[in-house]
Amino acid sequence: MDAIFGAVTGDQITLIKNDYGTPIYVYSESLLEQAARAALDFPHQYGLTVRYAMKALPTRRILQLFEGYGLHIDASSYFEVQRAQKAGISVEKIKLTAQQLPAQEDITYFIAGGGKITACSLTQLETIGKALRGSSCREMGVRINPGLGSGHCNRTNVGGSASSFGIWHQQIDQAKAIIKDYGLRVTALHTHIGSGSDPDVWEEAAALSLGMVEQFSDVTTLDLGGGFKVARVPEEKTTNLQECGTRVQAQFSAFYHRTKRELHLEIEPGTYLIANAGVILAEVIDVKSTDKYNFIVIDSGMTEIARPILYGAQHLIMVLAYGHAPQHEVESVVTGHCCESGDVSTLVPHMPEEMLPRLLPEAKKGDILIVGGAGAYCSGMSLKNYNSFPEAAEVLLRKDGIIEPIRVRQTLDQMVGNER
Amino acid sequence: MDAIFGAVTGDQITLIKNDYGTPIYVYSESLLEQAARAALDFPHQYGLTVRYAMKALPTRRILQLFEGYGLHIDASSYFEVQRAQKAGISVEKIKLTAQQLPAQEDITYFIAGGGKITACSLTQLETIGKALRGSSCREMGVRINPGLGSGHCNRTNVGGSASSFGIWHQQIDQAKAIIKDYGLRVTALHTHIGSGSDPDVWEEAAALSLGMVEQFSDVTTLDLGGGFKVARVPEEKTTNLQECGTRVQAQFSAFYHRTKRELHLEIEPGTYLIANAGVILAEVIDVKSTDKYNFIVIDSGMTEIARPILYGAQHLIMVLAYGHAPQHEVESVVTGHCCESGDVSTLVPHMPEEMLPRLLPEAKKGDILIVGGAGAYCSGMSLKNYNSFPEAAEVLLRKDGIIEPIRVRQTLDQMVGNER
Repeated sequence: MDAIFGAVTGDQITLIKNDYGTPIYVYSESLLEQAARAALDFPHQYGLTVRYAMKALPTRRILQLFEGYGLHIDASSYFEVQRAQKAGISVEKIKLTAQQLPAQEDITYFIAGGGKITACSLTQLETIGKALRGSSCREMGVRINPGLGSGHCNRTNVGGSASSFGIWHQQIDQAKAIIKDYGLRVTALHTHIGSGSDPDVWEEAAALSLGMVEQFSDVTTLDLGGGFKVARVPEEKTTNLQECGTRVQAQFSAFYHRTKRELHLEIEPGTYLIANAGVILAEVIDVKSTDKYNFIVIDSGMTEIARPILYGAQHLIMVLAYGHAPQHEVESVVTGHCCESGDVSTLVPHMPEEMLPRLLPEAKKGDILIVGGAGAYCSGMSLKNYNSFPEAAEVLLRKDGIIEPIRVRQTLDQMVGNER
Repeated sequence: MDAIFGAVTGDQITLIKNDYGTPIYVYSESLLEQAARAALDFPHQYGLTVRYAMKALPTRRILQLFEGYGLHIDASSYFEVQRAQKAGISVEKIKLTAQQLPAQEDITYFIAGGGKITACSLTQLETIGKALRGSSCREMGVRINPGLGSGHCNRTNVGGSASSFGIWHQQIDQAKAIIKDYGLRVTALHTHIGSGSDPDVWEEAAALSLGMVEQFSDVTTLDLGGGFKVARVPEEKTTNLQECGTRVQAQFSAFYHRTKRELHLEIEPGTYLIANAGVILAEVIDVKSTDKYNFIVIDSGMTEIARPILYGAQHLIMVLAYGHAPQHEVESVVTGHCCESGDVSTLVPHMPEEMLPRLLPEAKKGDILIVGGAGAYCSGMSLKNYNSFPEAAEVLLRKDGIIEPIRVRQTLDQMVGNER
């Protein structure tokens, strides 16, 4: 059988199912590497650092693989910083850009060790200022909300008026006053505006960001963040990194000619690096119907993948039949194993309230249902342990063909281990 | 200070914050007991069993409290069955009604021990039939989807054409054929149709269900399931159990006069028992603004409460100020600690894509923000470990005033313990 979604073959699925059970996440080492190489090829004029936004999938082995390809780390919490360090990644490669800062002593310790930090609000600037009092290191980054956003509704906009990320661009003077008060040196500017694949938006974001760099004379690095959209289904569009990067590069070049400042570029992809390198394998545990709908019930669902019910996200779905050969396709709703009416994976794009049956091969109990595009924000962001289902296992399909377990299935004893 | 949301006082909050940190769930023993007593008072003609739908909040101590009040257990997975047993609840008190059945030998063992099981599909009927082959026990329940539903959109309907729960009512003949083939005895019928507070809907559901009972001569128990809506904010309406129950009781009585069959009633509340008996305490870690919005950022969010972003659910929010006295209120968006644009707790009812700022006292960093109505489907159903934030702690505020830790905060080592 051919590779399924480019990641894993039918024979490998059978092996994984038999050896490790379902539900399980499978990641493809070769696809991870391919995506990392593409990100490292992002056009740049005066140097580039690619940081993996580890919240997308923070499993130890994945972090180590990406570090091996030359990526650094974008951490969204101090827990992520510590998690990356536990995976063996040196602190100099980690940048913390978070809504929630750790305790002051942790900030001091982290920066003294060589870690990089980005202040995302005026409050954070003050906190970092206090943490660095008496320290020889004064360097840090600042995240600015440039007033431009990308997203399909006001809640999911990462930039613009409706976004809480970063310091609002009209408050730069207040920021500068705090920076001056504490004698801080802002060497990096961060202006992540969220998921987009439109080169024009990238160009506009770069131009806006460079305009703000002009207000910070010590800045040597501009971090444009992540949010490179990836097509998980044919109707979607994958960001063309070369096209977007070339536009950004031209802006950096023009900035140099205007200011004689050579800016280092940082980008922080998560989805781009891993979305299509992972699949979920689930067993079909039931097939049932009402007068209007056919349901394929699987031993997974919102416990392993929340993106459909959170965002109406679309994921490819394939059925691997065992012991029968599906003769025709049936409009089906894929239903999870939770006693929760909302546990459905086939929903209307951007309208998670409405079911959208999908034409799928006639499935039977015991078949395997494969959910594609499940590398990013699935294992890392799901309704874990709902209905007391244990955290699923994860395996890495290595380039040498070996199936390597990288996270074993949680036990019930572990789940309740902290209860008294 | 008066009780906050009826559950906890300001002084207790300060104690909990200092002793156990934030974010933390706080449950009130007296409110749990009060709700349990109200559920046990549900009008009935020929006997009543109240089962706690433990998926709402499966923490050991909570299960034990409810058992102490005389409740039995509604388990939605075999993991929940085992979890309840680990909490010391005897198997005879546990009924399994699930989308996913355990292995056949577990079914045999569970039923032989006195556990109750409900077949929720034709496939499950067959599986249970096979599991009971050669066993002396032939008794079981069947869940029927009566074709009537309650919910605000097709995805969240628990009954009706769009729901996958139970055997579709037009397939009863097929079900009976399987029951006959395997020599099963259906002694319980289950017809949960989902959240509703309308007595007319309850009456209609009872009438429909009783009509179906007539088709199963061995049935002695009718389980109407749960879904008693509870008002978490003043705009919502709490189910009047007495009113709904009286209607149901009249139906049972009429059924007796028609058939001379005395039916035992079962109900399975989850939300009703615990929704308003719990709050989340979170620390305000930032207050920031753009030109259009004021944001109160807390050290909690989708990692502890997913209901707002899943369903646009409404929860009361209160600010407990420390070291200042808020002079006025500000329209504010409550933002979680995750680097996720969607991590917002103040959204439009039933429209989780749109933010809805709320008038809240002017908050400052270090204040405590209290989220009400957070007992059900919060700790039990959240985006746990996203951004590598550890599972939050839980305490029980006992009737004797003692604050009892019932789940301690997860450590990072535990979170990554299964990684290889």
